[in-house]
Amino acid sequence: MTDTIDYFTEERSEEVVNASMGADISPRLAAVMTSLVKHLHAFAKDVELSQEEWAYAIDFLTRTGQMCDANRQEFILLSDVLGLSMLVDAINHRRPSGATENTVLGPFHVPGAPEYPMGTDISLDGKGESCLFTGQVRDSAGNPIEGARIDVWCDNADGYYDVQQPGIQPKWNNRGIFVTGADGAYSFRGIRPVSYPIPDDGPVGQMLGALGRHPNRPAHMHFIVSAPGHETIVTHTFVDGDQWLSSDAVFGVKSSLVATMEAADDTAWRSTFDFVITRAEPAS
Amino acid sequence: MTDTIDYFTEERSEEVVNASMGADISPRLAAVMTSLVKHLHAFAKDVELSQEEWAYAIDFLTRTGQMCDANRQEFILLSDVLGLSMLVDAINHRRPSGATENTVLGPFHVPGAPEYPMGTDISLDGKGESCLFTGQVRDSAGNPIEGARIDVWCDNADGYYDVQQPGIQPKWNNRGIFVTGADGAYSFRGIRPVSYPIPDDGPVGQMLGALGRHPNRPAHMHFIVSAPGHETIVTHTFVDGDQWLSSDAVFGVKSSLVATMEAADDTAWRSTFDFVITRAEPAS
Repeated sequence: MTDTIDYFTEERSEEVVNASMGADISPRLAAVMTSLVKHLHAFAKDVELSQEEWAYAIDFLTRTGQMCDANRQEFILLSDVLGLSMLVDAINHRRPSGATENTVLGPFHVPGAPEYPMGTDISLDGKGESCLFTGQVRDSAGNPIEGARIDVWCDNADGYYDVQQPGIQPKWNNRGIFVTGADGAYSFRGIRPVSYPIPDDGPVGQMLGALGRHPNRPAHMHFIVSAPGHETIVTHTFVDGDQWLSSDAVFGVKSSLVATMEAADDTAWRSTFDFVITRAEPAS
Repeated sequence: MTDTIDYFTEERSEEVVNASMGADISPRLAAVMTSLVKHLHAFAKDVELSQEEWAYAIDFLTRTGQMCDANRQEFILLSDVLGLSMLVDAINHRRPSGATENTVLGPFHVPGAPEYPMGTDISLDGKGESCLFTGQVRDSAGNPIEGARIDVWCDNADGYYDVQQPGIQPKWNNRGIFVTGADGAYSFRGIRPVSYPIPDDGPVGQMLGALGRHPNRPAHMHFIVSAPGHETIVTHTFVDGDQWLSSDAVFGVKSSLVATMEAADDTAWRSTFDFVITRAEPAS
């Protein structure tokens, strides 16, 4: 009897593992796991993974999980620095040419920021170089969108978001929500964002070091732009000329998202960026 | 300037991520990571991984890491049930035909078990059906190997290893070390091993459930067989006829490792298995 059993072999490892799944499970789960097993085994075979490397990987993943708490998500960082977060974002947000592109949400968005009148300064700690952010929200036909909600956030001049420094930065420092009028225009004052390293005192930081990579992100302002009946855009604008623009540790930069940063006068900068958002597709 | 930068795109995601590695890193690390990124991205593209699935995976991996402690290694379980542990074992222990095959070590080996004279009973808790384990250790030319060290362990009649039940089972229950004489023969008494589920009260158990898989391993006796100048064998012998033989949750069964289990008399079983171990290759 035992001779007819389809036992595990190196050659047929994926088939044997995938054949163990039950027949009545979610078809989507079956498809995802079948592909995962296929690629995981192909990886181990391609590199002829050694027992020591396998043991290192087990320990690395364990330490990554144990680094996570309410304020730190080391597995998201791992996904970010491997380009997986950007890839999943890209797969799920393919847009027609001309529409504003997405980039990663990042871990520092906080819902419920204060809504301000246009022109308000969102920098509450008095640090940094003043900058006016301005532009327009339009649909793909070029018409201004009224009632578009613009949720913005960035780091302070020291390179930290307010939620990273509770008690040090004022609550809602460098965050705010603005809603467009009939002209679709927006403007608010803040600081010229600065580049900063992602948290690199954990396993992911060690990995970046071993790979000869730096942990820095180029300076950027986060935006979520939403309007009824339109696709929500989760993106950043990047400061043109930033030294890390070509080597963002999380691969978030797209050329269409690099915004101008020009001197408005002797004391302030101006960054101009227009958003083009498309009609939401009806739920299928 | 920014137009000439090789920014991340969905199409070229692997190339851009892998191009970020430094030039002076370990060539082996570079090769392993390049393949890992290639297969990870190919997986996400093949299944068009959704944001929700990605978020589920992040949470699953986090919970898996947080389930680990001094007595529980949930990432090894995950590797086991995905067939990765067996695959890495197979890649690293390709042997000539006729040599005894490896299988997974498992998490329950404890170094330093008592060394006993041949024939000793290693079952210390008085439970289970008695069984005589017997056979010979030979080299690939058929010559008996003197001084071969045979380290054995198995679960008790309730399906638990002693280390899973400290204070309930006697220390070193169903464990022992035996050293062959000039005839290469071994024999020891123990119990007929019983099948048992791998720990399934964590994320891996939930995954098995969602995949329509059971957590059971067919009954087996663990062996590490070593002799000076020879390749160490880490393996099990499986009880022929076990109901889980064809569906081991960790894919550890090989047909060559299924040992006979016959009635020796009215009160005891006998399991016979010969080990063939090859000369160790000189370190290259």
